[in-house]
Amino acid sequence: MYDVIPIGRVRSSLVHRAAAPMQGNEGAPDARLVFDPQYHDAVCDLRAGDEILVLTWLHQSDRSVLRVHPRDDLAAPLRGVCSTRSPDRPNPIGIHRVRILAVEAPLEFTVAELEAIDGTPIIDVKPVLDRARER
Amino acid sequence: MYDVIPIGRVRSSLVHRAAAPMQGNEGAPDARLVFDPQYHDAVCDLRAGDEILVLTWLHQSDRSVLRVHPRDDLAAPLRGVCSTRSPDRPNPIGIHRVRILAVEAPLEFTVAELEAIDGTPIIDVKPVLDRARER
Repeated sequence: MYDVIPIGRVRSSLVHRAAAPMQGNEGAPDARLVFDPQYHDAVCDLRAGDEILVLTWLHQSDRSVLRVHPRDDLAAPLRGVCSTRSPDRPNPIGIHRVRILAVEAPLEFTVAELEAIDGTPIIDVKPVLDRARER
Repeated sequence: MYDVIPIGRVRSSLVHRAAAPMQGNEGAPDARLVFDPQYHDAVCDLRAGDEILVLTWLHQSDRSVLRVHPRDDLAAPLRGVCSTRSPDRPNPIGIHRVRILAVEAPLEFTVAELEAIDGTPIIDVKPVLDRARER
């Protein structure tokens, strides 16, 4: 077992999980990434225009769930969570591909179309690599 | 702080971190994903041919590192780890896009070109979504 330590939080107009779109390109609002001061050096080279992967800890998830009805469609057969993007899964890590719209302050970034709710812990940010297989 | 629980391990001919390629498409070998029995229902719908994202915990990483020389090139300026794919970072989560080549057993999958070393904990598997922004 390993400890994941939040390095920041999502600030968003999305407050309830039930209202959040399932993917960013399904109507998610722009949101803010706010990092803790001790991680300044880790995020200091992020720039407006960068395409990034934001990794989050989906803290409202049910970690005991191993099978789900995809996209909450009860008519769809149950499916192992590793074949779905369900937030309910043993390690509820979200991967969100977003573009940085603006650097508001050294620790605050506005990003486009993020489906994570307000307060969601950020656990990592990685650049998108420009290779075909990197998706 | 949150607990990440390994759901399986990578089995690979790569044993030492120093010998591992930096990305899967830089000469990484095929490898095996072996899951723990209690996660059978989570992985039961994975099939040969599936393109997946394997999330790993890069257990040999230095979590205190906030800036690195990209690709270990000491001539390159130091860069915040969130603008690099360095394994050394506060939460050392690896994202590996791979294709499943074969299902060897209900809990064992052979995948193509995985740069993680033998014994690396697997913490999640997600399907690749077929959308342009999902990369």
